[in-house]
Amino acid sequence: MDKLLYGVAYYTEYLPYNRLEKDMAMIKAAGMNVIRIAESTWSSHEPSEGIFDFTHVTQVIEAAAREGLDVIIGTPTYAIPPWMAAKHPEIIADTGQGREKYGRRQNMDITSPIYLFYAQRVIRKLMEASLHYPNVIGVQLDNETKHYGTCGPNVQRMFVRHLRETFGQIDKMNEAFGFNYWSNRVDAWENVPDVTGAVNGSFRAEFEKFRRNLVTEFLTWQSKIVKEYLRKDQFITHNFDYEWRDHSFGLQPDVNHKHAANAISLTGSDIYHPSQSKLTGTEIAFCGATAYGLKESNYLVLETEAQGLIEWLPYPGQLRLQAYSHLASGACGVMYWHWHSIHHSQETYWKGVLSHDLEPNAIYREACNIGKEIAALGPIRKKNDVAILVSNESLNGIKIFHFPDRSFEYNDVLRWFHDALFEMNIEIDIIFPEDVARFSQYKMLVVPALYSAPDSLLEALETYANNGGYLIAGYRSGFSNEFLQVRHTIQPTPGCFGVEYDLFTKPVDVALKSNLFKEPRFASHWMEMLRPTTAEALVTYDHPAWGQYAAVTKNKTAVYIGCHMEKDALKILLKSLLEEAGLWTKIQQAQFPIIIKSGLDVNGRPTHFYMNYSGASRKQEIYHTGEIVDLPPWGVSVFTENSH
Amino acid sequence: MDKLLYGVAYYTEYLPYNRLEKDMAMIKAAGMNVIRIAESTWSSHEPSEGIFDFTHVTQVIEAAAREGLDVIIGTPTYAIPPWMAAKHPEIIADTGQGREKYGRRQNMDITSPIYLFYAQRVIRKLMEASLHYPNVIGVQLDNETKHYGTCGPNVQRMFVRHLRETFGQIDKMNEAFGFNYWSNRVDAWENVPDVTGAVNGSFRAEFEKFRRNLVTEFLTWQSKIVKEYLRKDQFITHNFDYEWRDHSFGLQPDVNHKHAANAISLTGSDIYHPSQSKLTGTEIAFCGATAYGLKESNYLVLETEAQGLIEWLPYPGQLRLQAYSHLASGACGVMYWHWHSIHHSQETYWKGVLSHDLEPNAIYREACNIGKEIAALGPIRKKNDVAILVSNESLNGIKIFHFPDRSFEYNDVLRWFHDALFEMNIEIDIIFPEDVARFSQYKMLVVPALYSAPDSLLEALETYANNGGYLIAGYRSGFSNEFLQVRHTIQPTPGCFGVEYDLFTKPVDVALKSNLFKEPRFASHWMEMLRPTTAEALVTYDHPAWGQYAAVTKNKTAVYIGCHMEKDALKILLKSLLEEAGLWTKIQQAQFPIIIKSGLDVNGRPTHFYMNYSGASRKQEIYHTGEIVDLPPWGVSVFTENSH
Amino acid sequence: MDKLLYGVAYYTEYLPYNRLEKDMAMIKAAGMNVIRIAESTWSSHEPSEGIFDFTHVTQVIEAAAREGLDVIIGTPTYAIPPWMAAKHPEIIADTGQGREKYGRRQNMDITSPIYLFYAQRVIRKLMEASLHYPNVIGVQLDNETKHYGTCGPNVQRMFVRHLRETFGQIDKMNEAFGFNYWSNRVDAWENVPDVTGAVNGSFRAEFEKFRRNLVTEFLTWQSKIVKEYLRKDQFITHNFDYEWRDHSFGLQPDVNHKHAANAISLTGSDIYHPSQSKLTGTEIAFCGATAYGLKESNYLVLETEAQGLIEWLPYPGQLRLQAYSHLASGACGVMYWHWHSIHHSQETYWKGVLSHDLEPNAIYREACNIGKEIAALGPIRKKNDVAILVSNESLNGIKIFHFPDRSFEYNDVLRWFHDALFEMNIEIDIIFPEDVARFSQYKMLVVPALYSAPDSLLEALETYANNGGYLIAGYRSGFSNEFLQVRHTIQPTPGCFGVEYDLFTKPVDVALKSNLFKEPRFASHWMEMLRPTTAEALVTYDHPAWGQYAAVTKNKTAVYIGCHMEKDALKILLKSLLEEAGLWTKIQQAQFPIIIKSGLDVNGRPTHFYMNYSGASRKQEIYHTGEIVDLPPWGVSVFTENSH
Repeated sequence: MDKLLYGVAYYTEYLPYNRLEKDMAMIKAAGMNVIRIAESTWSSHEPSEGIFDFTHVTQVIEAAAREGLDVIIGTPTYAIPPWMAAKHPEIIADTGQGREKYGRRQNMDITSPIYLFYAQRVIRKLMEASLHYPNVIGVQLDNETKHYGTCGPNVQRMFVRHLRETFGQIDKMNEAFGFNYWSNRVDAWENVPDVTGAVNGSFRAEFEKFRRNLVTEFLTWQSKIVKEYLRKDQFITHNFDYEWRDHSFGLQPDVNHKHAANAISLTGSDIYHPSQSKLTGTEIAFCGATAYGLKESNYLVLETEAQGLIEWLPYPGQLRLQAYSHLASGACGVMYWHWHSIHHSQETYWKGVLSHDLEPNAIYREACNIGKEIAALGPIRKKNDVAILVSNESLNGIKIFHFPDRSFEYNDVLRWFHDALFEMNIEIDIIFPEDVARFSQYKMLVVPALYSAPDSLLEALETYANNGGYLIAGYRSGFSNEFLQVRHTIQPTPGCFGVEYDLFTKPVDVALKSNLFKEPRFASHWMEMLRPTTAEALVTYDHPAWGQYAAVTKNKTAVYIGCHMEKDALKILLKSLLEEAGLWTKIQQAQFPIIIKSGLDVNGRPTHFYMNYSGASRKQEIYHTGEIVDLPPWGVSVFTENSH
Repeated sequence: MDKLLYGVAYYTEYLPYNRLEKDMAMIKAAGMNVIRIAESTWSSHEPSEGIFDFTHVTQVIEAAAREGLDVIIGTPTYAIPPWMAAKHPEIIADTGQGREKYGRRQNMDITSPIYLFYAQRVIRKLMEASLHYPNVIGVQLDNETKHYGTCGPNVQRMFVRHLRETFGQIDKMNEAFGFNYWSNRVDAWENVPDVTGAVNGSFRAEFEKFRRNLVTEFLTWQSKIVKEYLRKDQFITHNFDYEWRDHSFGLQPDVNHKHAANAISLTGSDIYHPSQSKLTGTEIAFCGATAYGLKESNYLVLETEAQGLIEWLPYPGQLRLQAYSHLASGACGVMYWHWHSIHHSQETYWKGVLSHDLEPNAIYREACNIGKEIAALGPIRKKNDVAILVSNESLNGIKIFHFPDRSFEYNDVLRWFHDALFEMNIEIDIIFPEDVARFSQYKMLVVPALYSAPDSLLEALETYANNGGYLIAGYRSGFSNEFLQVRHTIQPTPGCFGVEYDLFTKPVDVALKSNLFKEPRFASHWMEMLRPTTAEALVTYDHPAWGQYAAVTKNKTAVYIGCHMEKDALKILLKSLLEEAGLWTKIQQAQFPIIIKSGLDVNGRPTHFYMNYSGASRKQEIYHTGEIVDLPPWGVSVFTENSH
Repeated sequence: MDKLLYGVAYYTEYLPYNRLEKDMAMIKAAGMNVIRIAESTWSSHEPSEGIFDFTHVTQVIEAAAREGLDVIIGTPTYAIPPWMAAKHPEIIADTGQGREKYGRRQNMDITSPIYLFYAQRVIRKLMEASLHYPNVIGVQLDNETKHYGTCGPNVQRMFVRHLRETFGQIDKMNEAFGFNYWSNRVDAWENVPDVTGAVNGSFRAEFEKFRRNLVTEFLTWQSKIVKEYLRKDQFITHNFDYEWRDHSFGLQPDVNHKHAANAISLTGSDIYHPSQSKLTGTEIAFCGATAYGLKESNYLVLETEAQGLIEWLPYPGQLRLQAYSHLASGACGVMYWHWHSIHHSQETYWKGVLSHDLEPNAIYREACNIGKEIAALGPIRKKNDVAILVSNESLNGIKIFHFPDRSFEYNDVLRWFHDALFEMNIEIDIIFPEDVARFSQYKMLVVPALYSAPDSLLEALETYANNGGYLIAGYRSGFSNEFLQVRHTIQPTPGCFGVEYDLFTKPVDVALKSNLFKEPRFASHWMEMLRPTTAEALVTYDHPAWGQYAAVTKNKTAVYIGCHMEKDALKILLKSLLEEAGLWTKIQQAQFPIIIKSGLDVNGRPTHFYMNYSGASRKQEIYHTGEIVDLPPWGVSVFTENSH
C-alpha cells in the first residue's frame, strides 16, 4: 500500500432516504478516497433464507467509482439475520451462563456447522457480486471477531479432543494441571469436567488458549473462501481491536493477534480513544505499535472515531491531530466509523462525520482540511530500537491469578511501561513470544509481567541479556510455565538477573529508597522481596519490616523491577537505563505533551511529526533543523529531511 | 367527593388477636372517618380453591358502621394464594430472566386466562359480600398495578399481533424501527425475534408502550366487573404510584396514568416521601399535581406513611404538616398505610400509626389532633397558570438512549424543572400529550426532555408558542419521533425556537455566561451547541472550544434550554421568564422552605396554606392579609379569604 | 490433650516431586510434632469408582512415624471426584439459583443418598487403611462443613416434613409465620410454597434453622461411622470456621456450632485474620473464645495462616505473637495451613510455611523458633467472669429484618461488644442459648441484639438479673420470638430493664448526653426512644425532636443500651459498669495494643501472656510481679506464677 487511504464506513442500508450520489460527492469533496461497506447487513443481503439481493451493494460501488472512490467490502458474518436464529436457535452460543437471545450481534457460536454453512454461502455470493469491480481494492473478513464466550457441549468436546491431542495420556494432563488439588483428578477423557465450573487455573487457561485459537481458525477459514474470488491486486484485511475499557486500552484478551494475522494480507485495526481534555495519543500509539508489529508493516485504521460517543466530540483541531498521530505510528490509512450518524436502534449516539441532520458541519469541515493536507503524504516506515514483549498467556494467567487489587490487571502493567516510554518520546515495537527471532534487532527489550512462559522463551530472554541486550523485566515475570504451573525453583527465572526472592506482598505504606529519586516514591499493588546475589540494588524498600530487601536490581544489562510504583518513578528509572544504553537523544528534550514520532517516507526520507497534546499553544524547537515553530492547541507539524 | 376523608388501611387478618371493636373505637376517636380493607388477603377470602369466606370482611364493615366509619373495599388480586401457584405455576410471569418463584406479591402474568378466571371469581364474590353495605363508599381496583415484567411467549405473541395491527406490512415495521441495523431486518411475522434479546431501541420502546397498555386493559377489565355490582353513590378508584427511588420520585415508567385513569371514577394515589430533616414537600407536591391533573379533579391519597420506614419516623409536627400539604395540593382524603404495625413476614418495619404494642403513642396522638383540625375543612380546587408536560414515551426513550451518566434519567430532568418551580412557590399542573386541548389554558408550558414525540405534538407546541404562550423546552426535546427514530432534519424541532444545533456532548469544566448570573455557573450532564438564527442567546458557554455556541436561547416566547445546570441557576433563568410572563407575584416574596399553596374551597373562597418546611420557627407575613404569623418548626397556617 | 500440638497440613498429592523424607525432617527440625493429611484428595484415594489406593496416605503416616510425628487423618468428603459428578450430576446441590457445575469443592447436596453412599464407603476404606497406625492420634470429619445452599425439591420435602412435625396442624404454621400477609396462607401441606421465592421472614428463618441442622446431622452421621473404627486414645474433631469477611469475622451463620459440636470429642477451629499493620489479635481472641466455649475445654487450631494470602505475609515476629495468642486463648495446638505453597489450581497464592521454591525461608526460620519455645508449655485452662451470649437465630433474624444500613449486621453488633471488652483486657466466654445453666457462673452477661428468643430464654435472663447478675442487653434484644414474630407487648422484653419504647429510627446527627462522656458522642445505625419507668437514664439523646428520650438505662443490675455508638463510647459505658461489678482490676491499667491474657497451666499455676500488638517497642509492667519488661514490636512475654 503506497498511497494513504482516507475514508469512512458507509451504510446506505441505514439511511432514512436515498442520498447516495450526494454522499459520494461530499466524501470526494472532503479529499477522501475510500469507503468500507457491506459488513453489517446480512439481513439486507439475504432478507429471507436463500434469497440474495446485492443491488444496494453494487449501487454504492458504482456510485463510488463515479467519484473515483475505492471500496473495501466487508463480509457480513458477525451479525446474523432473524430468520436464521428463528430457524436454528442453537446457533446462538451457549456461554455457560445459558444461551443468549437473538438480537445483538456477535453472540453466535462460530464453530456451529449450521452457522458456517450459511456464512460461506453469503460470503461467496457477496464476493461474486462485488469483487470484479475495479475500484474494490480489498476485503475485510468479518468484524472484530471473538469467540463470544462459546462453550457449549459441542465446543467442550472439541476441547477434550484438543486435550487428548496435547497430552496423549490422561495422567500427563492431571500432572500438568495439578488436578490432584481439591479432588479434581480425572480418570478418563469422558469424565473431563465442564470447564465452566472449573476452579483449576491451568485448565481454565488452556481452554482460553483453545478459544483464542477458534478465532484464528475462523478467520483462516473465511480467508480461504475469499481467496477463491480475490484478484491479485486486492488485499484481505481484518479489523483487530483491543481490550476495551470504555475505549481501546490494551492487548486483546480473546484473540491472539499474532496467530490470527496469518489469515490476512494487510493488517487492520479499530482504534477508539478518549477525547477532549483526555486526548493524550497513548492509545493511538499503543494500538498502532501493536498493529504495525504484527507484520512489521503499515496497517489500516479501519475504524476510528469522527464524533464518536457523546463525550468524545473532538475539540477543534483534534480530528487533525488524531489523523496525523495514526500516520506517524505507521498507519497507511485512516477511516472513520462512520460517515453519517444513525437514526435508529442502538449506536444512534455513536456519531459519524455527519450528525443526524446529514448536513456539512464543523467536523466535516475539519475532515476536508485533513483530506487536503494529507493528499501529498504516503505511509511512514518505522524502525525502533526498543520493543515491549506482550503475551496473551500472561494476560490470562494474571486474570486468573490476579493481583490483590483485582481491578489492576496485566494490561495495566503493560500500559504502565508503554505510557512511560511514550511520554518520554521513546518509540517502541510491540512483539509477541513468537517473535523470538526478532529479539536481537532491539537494543532494549521490556518485558511486563510475563507471568506464563515456557522454558524456551525464558532461555531466549536470558540469551538476549547475555549478549548485551538491555532486558528490563517487570515483577511476576517467569513465575509459571505455559500451563500456569508455578515453577518450584528459585525465582525469578531466568537466572540472568542475579537476584532471588520467595516472599511477596501487597505494599502498604512502603516507600522506595534510591539515589535516582529526589522525591518520596512509593511501591503499590505488588512487591517482591528481592535478595541480590550478583546484582546491584538500584532501589530498595524503606520500611521497618522489609527494609533489608531490594525493589529493583541490575545485573549487567539485566534489570529486574520487583514492584509497582508511580509512572513518574518508573520514568526516572527507565531514563537512567536508556541513557546507559545510548537511547537518550536530543529528541528526549521534548516530553509529553509534546510528542515526536519519526519514520521513513516512501522515498526513504526521515520524516518527523511534532505534536502538541495540550490545549495550550507552545513554541517548540524542531531538533532536526534548529527551527522554532508555534504549535497551536492540539497542533501538529510535519518535517521531512531533505536527504538521507 | 365534598367531604375530606381521613383514615387508615386496616388488616384484621394480620392482627395477633381480636381487637376489632377496640381498633374501630380508637380510629373514630382520632377523628378519622374511613378505613380501607380487603385488598391484600385473597388467601383469607378464598383459603382453598373455590371455598370463600368473607366473614372477616363483613365483620369489619359492620364494626366500622357501628362507629360511623366508611369503608373502601380493595379487590385482592395483586397477591395470589399458594394453592393457585401450586396448581398453575405458569401463572407466574415469565420475565425473560426466567420465571420467579411464588412468594412475593405482584409477580403474576396479568394476561394469563387462568389468573383472570380466578381473579374475576373472587372479585365477584367479594363485591357480592360487601357492596350492599351502606357505609361501603367505594372500591379500589387491585393495588399499584404494573405489568410485572411479563414477556413470556404468550405475551410476545400478543405483541406480534399488536405490531401486525400497527404496521400492516412488515417492511413498514422494518423501516419504522430501523431493523436494517446489525442485520435485524425481519422477513416474516413469525420471525419477529424475542424482544428480551433486542438491542433495537425502537422495538424495545414499542414493547414497553404495549406493556403499559396491558395495565390499562387489566384495570379496565376489573372496572367493568366491579361496575356490575356498584351502587351509583359508590366510586371506583385505584392507587396509582410513582417511580420509586427509595420513595415516590417521578413519573411512573410502567403505567400510562393518563390512559389507565379512564378505568376509574375517582383518582387515587400512593405517596411516600423522605421525612425528618429530608422532608421538603416536593414529593407531595409533584405526586399530588400528577394525580390532580389526571382528571383535573380532587384525588384520594390512598396510602401515605404514618411512621413508615425506620428512617422515616416523623419529627413532632411533621405528620400534621404532611396532611395539610396533601390537602393544599388538592387531595380530598389522606389515608395512612396503615393502622397497626405488622408483627410478621416482610413489612414488619414499615410501621403504621400504632407500633407493635398496639397502644396509643406519640404518632396516634398527633393524628388525633389532625383529625380534630381538619373536620371543618373540605377539598380545595386548584387553578394554575403553569403546566409541565410529561411523557411516558420520552421517559422510556431516555432510558434506552440514556445520558452519558446513566443514573441521570428523564425523571431527574422532570424533577429539576418541577422542584425549581416548587421552591419558588409557582404552582403547576402536570399534563400529558393527550392533554393538547388544555395547552391554551396555561400562560407557561414547561417541556422537560420531550425526547419522543409525534409530529402532531410538536406542531401543537409550536402553535402554543406562536399564539404567545411561554414555551420553555428542555434539552433533547423533539429529537425523535414516536418510534424513537431520530429526526433527520435540523434540530431542535419544532422550529419556533429560532435556533439550530447538530453537536452535543457531556460538559466537563464548561462554565455558563449570562447577564442573569452573578455567581459562576456550570453546565453538567448534557450540552447542545446552539447556533441562534432568529433567537437571542440568554446564556452562552464559557469554554475554549465551545465558546461560540449558545446554551439557552429565546425567540419571542419560545425558550430553549440546551444544557443542564444547577437548579439554582435554572431558578434564576425561570424567574426572569416568569416575571416577563407576569407570573411573578407577591407570593414569590416567600421561597422555600416557606411554601405557599392556594386554591378554592367548596364554597369557592380562596384558601391559602402557609407551610414551614424547616426545623426553625419563622415569622411570616400572610400576603393576603398583611398579618404576621409565627410558623413553628414544621408548622402550617391556613387562611381562607372571606369573599371573592 | 495435655501436650501442645504444633504442626502443618501436609499434601504429598500436591507436590511437584517426591520430597516426603526431606519434608518430614524439616517439619521435625522446626519443633513441630503433628501433621494433618488426607482431607482434600478423594480423587487420589479413589481415582476411579470403587478403585481405592491409600499408599500415598500410609507412606506419609509411616514417614511421619519415623520422625516421631503424629498424624491427624481428615475424611475427604468435602470435595468429590470428577467421575462421581459425571455419573451423578444430581449430586451437586440445587441452590434455587440453579445447579452449579462440578469444579469447586463444597457444592454437593449433603443430603443426597448417592453422595452419602460413596462418602461412607471412602470413609470406611480410609479408616481401615490408616487408623491402626500408633501415630495416628485422631480423625477430622470433613472440612468446614456447611449446607452449601442446598434447597432442591428433595430438601424442600424434608423441610415440609419438618414443618409438619413442628406444627402438627397447618393453621398453627399459618399463625406462627403470619402467612395471612400478602395472601400467603397455606391450605394444605402439599401447597407449602417453594421457600426460595419466599418473602415471609418467619418461613425463611425456619428453613435456615432446618438447614443448619442438616450440617449437624451430617457430621453426626460421619462421626458414627468413624467411631466404628476408632481407638480409645484417638479423638474426633472438626474444623469449625466463622463468618467470613475476607477473614474470620464472627458467628458462623450456616452452622449451629453448639449443636454440631456434639458430633466430636475435641473442638477444632480454623482461624484466619488480617496481618501486618492490621494484626490486632481480636479475631484470634473472638474465634478462640467461641471454640473454647463449645465444650468449655481446650481446642485445636486446625488451620491458621503461615504466609497466607498475599496481603497477609507476616512481619518478622508476628508469626510468634500469633502462636502465643492462640495458646493464651486456650488452644491446645496450632497448625498451619499449610506446609508448602501449591504450584497449581486455585489456592496458589494462599502460601504455606514454605514458598514455591520449597526451601527454608524467613517464615520457616521463625516457625523453628516458635517450636523450640513452646516445647516446654502445655495447654492453658480458662476461667472468665464475663460472658457474651450469641444466637444463630438472632443473627439470621437480623439478616432478614435488617438494619437500615444493610451492611451493618448481627456480627457487627457482636464484634462491637467483643472488641470493646477485648481492648480493655476483659476476657470473655462465648455462650449459646443452650448454655442457660451456665448463666449463673458469670458476674456479667452481655447480650448483643438478641433479636429472636423464646420466652424461656428471656425469662432466664430476667432471673439472672434479678439474682444480681449484671445483664447488659443491646438494642433490638427480645423483640421477636423464636419464629421471628414481633412481640405485641410493651418493648423491651424481658421487663427487668424498667424501661419502655415503641419508636425507633436511624439516627442522623443525634448526639448523646451523659455525665460519663467528656467528648461529643453520637448515636449511629439504630436508636430506640427509651422511656424509663423504674430505670435511671445513663445516657439521653441530645436532639431537637428526640431530646426527651433515654438512650441507655440502668435498673439495678439490668442495663439496656438502646442505640449504637462509637466503640470508644461503649468502652466508657462498660468501664463504669465493670467497675461497679468489681471486674475492673490492675490488669486493666494496660489497654490495647497491650493485651494481657491469663489462665491456669496443666499444673494449675496462673500463667499470664503479655502481648504487644504494635510495631513500636514498649516498656511494660508485669502486674503480677512488679517487674518491668521490654516488649519489642509484636513481642510477647509469658509469666507463670510459682505457687497458687
